[in-house]
Amino acid sequence: MFKIRLLVSALALAGSLSVANAWETLPTEAPAPADNPTTPEKVELGKMLYHDPRLSSTGTVSCSSCHNTMLGGEDNRPNSMGVHGQTGGRSAPTVWNSAFNSVQFWDGRAPSLEAQAAGPVTNPIEMGMKSWDDVVARLKAIEGYDKAFEQAFGKDAISKDNATKAIAAYERTLITPNSPYDQYVNGNKAALTTQQVSGMTKMEELGCTGCHSGPALNGGGAFQRFPVIGNDYFEAQYHFKKDQGLAEVTKNEADAHLFKVPTLRNIALTAPYFHNGSVKTLEQAVTVMAKVQLGKDLSKDDVADITAFLNALTGEFPKQTMPQLPGTPGKTFN
Amino acid sequence: MFKIRLLVSALALAGSLSVANAWETLPTEAPAPADNPTTPEKVELGKMLYHDPRLSSTGTVSCSSCHNTMLGGEDNRPNSMGVHGQTGGRSAPTVWNSAFNSVQFWDGRAPSLEAQAAGPVTNPIEMGMKSWDDVVARLKAIEGYDKAFEQAFGKDAISKDNATKAIAAYERTLITPNSPYDQYVNGNKAALTTQQVSGMTKMEELGCTGCHSGPALNGGGAFQRFPVIGNDYFEAQYHFKKDQGLAEVTKNEADAHLFKVPTLRNIALTAPYFHNGSVKTLEQAVTVMAKVQLGKDLSKDDVADITAFLNALTGEFPKQTMPQLPGTPGKTFN
Repeated sequence: MFKIRLLVSALALAGSLSVANAWETLPTEAPAPADNPTTPEKVELGKMLYHDPRLSSTGTVSCSSCHNTMLGGEDNRPNSMGVHGQTGGRSAPTVWNSAFNSVQFWDGRAPSLEAQAAGPVTNPIEMGMKSWDDVVARLKAIEGYDKAFEQAFGKDAISKDNATKAIAAYERTLITPNSPYDQYVNGNKAALTTQQVSGMTKMEELGCTGCHSGPALNGGGAFQRFPVIGNDYFEAQYHFKKDQGLAEVTKNEADAHLFKVPTLRNIALTAPYFHNGSVKTLEQAVTVMAKVQLGKDLSKDDVADITAFLNALTGEFPKQTMPQLPGTPGKTFN
Repeated sequence: MFKIRLLVSALALAGSLSVANAWETLPTEAPAPADNPTTPEKVELGKMLYHDPRLSSTGTVSCSSCHNTMLGGEDNRPNSMGVHGQTGGRSAPTVWNSAFNSVQFWDGRAPSLEAQAAGPVTNPIEMGMKSWDDVVARLKAIEGYDKAFEQAFGKDAISKDNATKAIAAYERTLITPNSPYDQYVNGNKAALTTQQVSGMTKMEELGCTGCHSGPALNGGGAFQRFPVIGNDYFEAQYHFKKDQGLAEVTKNEADAHLFKVPTLRNIALTAPYFHNGSVKTLEQAVTVMAKVQLGKDLSKDDVADITAFLNALTGEFPKQTMPQLPGTPGKTFN
């Protein structure tokens, strides 16, 4: 975690410099790690696995149940509902453009999409599988997966490693380019309203872009403390501090309340807000962020302008075909 | 319910005649009622509604959660899991080819797909919405649905009636033609193996086709008593009689244990079997049906042959694009 904290310090420093923000458009392709280059076969397999509820103990929860590819990439709930109706303490982050986070999960504990994909499947309140050995056994029992894994990885390739690689490869294709914001940055000045441009300018002046920078407006997926400035009123309302963030993993007090900076891409579609989903509206999220991160009280107009701008960050969702999942002829797991 | 019972009597009679079964292929289009002709706009809207989890109280359960369009049209569970992890007593029937059932639900209580679609949404253990008024209010609050309803039905068209019509119109497109069985009936004698042809012949000789007749091998979705012949051993194992079928609705003893005859199309993909999902494998389902419906003990070869034939009833699933569901910018229901 030493590297992580170095990154935090670097970012805190960067945030304090008052340089003009370089507004950037979203790439249409995401970089892939050297050991998992993106191929159409992996993407197709990953799409199947991502939408297959048989990766959960009850056969009712797929990755897409909480990170819904038909919606804003999550479930619009304060906390997701896993197997047997169980809920946890955090709000599902969007899968759209998650390829542009350098770390994954709210607490950033996974260094890659591959590592992230392994987690929820065996989390007892999420997908509830006892072990990845059990997952692999299921996948081997489903006729059709063998062929799909072979096409993606070669013979006898059904494994935890390849399953998570395929899911990550699919997720790297979940990119929403060409938002009004991107069109504006690309030179189409009519793509944003005057109010939206005003909101964009205010975000820079206030310092929002100190963290929400880069193509995905997430500082590349860096860590940041939240909240920075204590506020009894908001804390009583929203209980932000109950969650220790990165310190829940590292047990190191220096990591208390460190969270991955979330992308602002499609933020209008992903209410409720913050790691615990306790803030219901985008306006309130803007108000709270300005106060507890930057120590600023926004006027009604400021909030309206910034919210208008945030609505311009909704991109174009690629048309996808539904995967037809291979069956288990004549038998079932449940 | 008088008409229903007439139908049962007529079918019992038909079943007792030993005429050769007319094997029929599946039409590629389903008939629609006069007041709900199928249009592309309705189908598109219906597909959105069918996959939208916001039609449930928790925002976690869509029609597709239990009647999964990426699988065999159901969830491969003995009973489905609704909001808050609740389960009921019956196994979700497949949505594929449900357009060819003259009645819907296991107990046949809905005379149409439109009537069926209204049910689960407000069932407290399924999708858990308090009322259709609440559903309509949600749909009105989701920007984007207004336009989709307008394209399908005209101005200010968001209503229970139109929502269920759209869902039914979509479901009428969920047809799986061109199974090996259909190819065989169409003259391609190589489409079935010798064993499968043997199973097909045995189904006719044994009397299975007395009920499982017609293009969907469901007697058009007629009613039939189940079980017909008491069997203490199977009853102790599978508890079929705990469910009164149609009599649960009509409270009429004459309707006890009447169920809609399920389609055999894609039956290999819809384990576990029967109204209560208590039978895990297709082989066991064949054995039990022969014994309690026809009073016949099948040999191992009979079971293997018939199971082989049933595997030939898996059709081709149409390629579908995923609907991108309209968002609720900046706010949420949950």
